[in-house]
Amino acid sequence: MNIPDKVVNRLTMYHFILEDIREDEKFISSTKFANLLGIDNSQVRKDLKYIDNQGKCRVGYEVTALKRKIEECLGFKKPKDAFIVGVGNLGTALAKYDGFKDYGLNVLAMFDKDQKKVGSTINGKEIFDISRVGNLASRLGVEVAILTVPREHAQGTANYLAGAGIKYIWNFTTCILDVPKDVKVWNENLIGSFLQFTNKDKDE
Amino acid sequence: MNIPDKVVNRLTMYHFILEDIREDEKFISSTKFANLLGIDNSQVRKDLKYIDNQGKCRVGYEVTALKRKIEECLGFKKPKDAFIVGVGNLGTALAKYDGFKDYGLNVLAMFDKDQKKVGSTINGKEIFDISRVGNLASRLGVEVAILTVPREHAQGTANYLAGAGIKYIWNFTTCILDVPKDVKVWNENLIGSFLQFTNKDKDE
Repeated sequence: MNIPDKVVNRLTMYHFILEDIREDEKFISSTKFANLLGIDNSQVRKDLKYIDNQGKCRVGYEVTALKRKIEECLGFKKPKDAFIVGVGNLGTALAKYDGFKDYGLNVLAMFDKDQKKVGSTINGKEIFDISRVGNLASRLGVEVAILTVPREHAQGTANYLAGAGIKYIWNFTTCILDVPKDVKVWNENLIGSFLQFTNKDKDE
Repeated sequence: MNIPDKVVNRLTMYHFILEDIREDEKFISSTKFANLLGIDNSQVRKDLKYIDNQGKCRVGYEVTALKRKIEECLGFKKPKDAFIVGVGNLGTALAKYDGFKDYGLNVLAMFDKDQKKVGSTINGKEIFDISRVGNLASRLGVEVAILTVPREHAQGTANYLAGAGIKYIWNFTTCILDVPKDVKVWNENLIGSFLQFTNKDKDE
């Protein structure tokens, strides 16, 4: 099913909200989602139609069923394996974040060129020398790399990853990567995100 | 000017690309932007119309002028001061990231409740006890908090920040915050972002 990006984004946030619901609350209203996210009620109802979950009049959405529907729809239960490339602060933070696994992202190993880091382990994930990406990617069938190297090494590392069989790069650097056509890049643009936040305010 | 979120996001990425242009390249074509970002040429031209920068036929956009226009338009030169609340791995990574300052985000101080961390300094930013947020926020005129505490402390900390005069929370946790109406939250939903990436692939 083709779900627009913004809807995917909101579906995960509905799931975060459902995770925090008290156990004795069996139903949740679209108004509750809407108020917490500062969006319109009608938007919530429209989003939830994508996953074929209709609320009941006056009662709302059944919490357990809705959670399961979102999980199925977004593939939380079919985890994708990934490598973290670049064991700096951000790479370490992402490696230590256990939440990813619940949402379908399974970090198998980390890579760095710093020999002081190679061989040690962060949150159960071993750090390998960067030269081993290709070998381990093909052995473990990993196609996703989370790129957290310093900006100045980003393009060089991306070239290397492309050559090593990586097909998806989740790019946390501010370098816009020039990669072969068969490699897909998703730019996690934190600066753009911050500016969206603050520019939004200006308009109001 | 009311610039849509996605355009703000792309404008910052055009700026990242301009940062990497070789010094002897005075002009850049919309095609170069488009190819690097995997989007349409026409999209680039439409985006750049928002900042009133017209490319010249056959020559393209003047690099220096375009950079300056984006900077003015998105407010890079009018930095917003912010606090980082929660000195874990992610908070530390964000504090160490010097790039923010170039893009208008100035982290003044950090806060944690862990007394082992309080008093030390990360990248020139002192760590204060969380109880001092209110005092320092009003003294320094800071209204933006970057929230990087563990999920289970997120709502409690948000309540506290709202009471301490913080008006904007950039939320890196997966807790959807319930805050007073005068406090704005921007959810940095990394999981949603990853799922957008991987779901996009499914459609193709």
